[in-house]
Amino acid sequence: MSAQDEHGVPRLTAAAVADDIGLLLAKLRAAGSTLNNKTLAEFGLRERSYSVLRLASSGLEPTQRELAEFLALDPSQIVALVDDLESRGLVSREQGRTDRRQKIVLATPDGERLHADAYAAMQECEAETLSALSTSEAETLRKLLRKALWG
Amino acid sequence: MSAQDEHGVPRLTAAAVADDIGLLLAKLRAAGSTLNNKTLAEFGLRERSYSVLRLASSGLEPTQRELAEFLALDPSQIVALVDDLESRGLVSREQGRTDRRQKIVLATPDGERLHADAYAAMQECEAETLSALSTSEAETLRKLLRKALWG
Repeated sequence: MSAQDEHGVPRLTAAAVADDIGLLLAKLRAAGSTLNNKTLAEFGLRERSYSVLRLASSGLEPTQRELAEFLALDPSQIVALVDDLESRGLVSREQGRTDRRQKIVLATPDGERLHADAYAAMQECEAETLSALSTSEAETLRKLLRKALWG
Repeated sequence: MSAQDEHGVPRLTAAAVADDIGLLLAKLRAAGSTLNNKTLAEFGLRERSYSVLRLASSGLEPTQRELAEFLALDPSQIVALVDDLESRGLVSREQGRTDRRQKIVLATPDGERLHADAYAAMQECEAETLSALSTSEAETLRKLLRKALWG
């Protein structure tokens, strides 16, 4: 019994389970994540450290607490990620401007340069992960995901 | 510095990173997964065992190898999940009809009943996870995710 039909599509896509949004999200996420981490390895990054660097380069001056909430990670995981990026000279911790007890995380000039290169590579990965969709379908997917999350 | 603006939306949604499809998939997946696992606990299931039970109830007679490929799990993880469901009388392993070396996994009548109840509860979870979307938007999301995965 083959797991693939003649078009290389897993036979089980015919199952009703293949309509469960949760499963579809997990599968597309898993496919993208494998490609992303392979590509980010060239920059000494992984998805999580890339996201922290990206937010630290955003101009929004995120606190560690905001990073933890937004990325759905434990504060201790954020501390470890920031420690690693800081030890490599890619980000620095600065005193928060509105809440001095909360350190903000800012990309250094080296961090901003690495982010720009990694971001360009990530755009290519995203295009590859979504290569079965047209540009307008990919934009619709992005819009619907944002709306599902934040209304 | 508040992590939320006046509408309860994380401030960092304004960051460019909030447009990365990978991050959006991960966040929506995480939100749904937490709710799903909380609900499935009532049935003694988690997302992975639910997916195995669902495929075993599909009429497609999946082999363990197909389950592993489709759910992107190691064969050893599938064996453990099937062992657990089998010990509870919810699935049975039967000889494959086309490839006798590959055992197929079938839901028992008890398994089919549990699946029907869990499925109804999962439909409610999906509706809650996607409550910001209209019915037609949710269908468009499902269609785009399927297309991105399988063309």
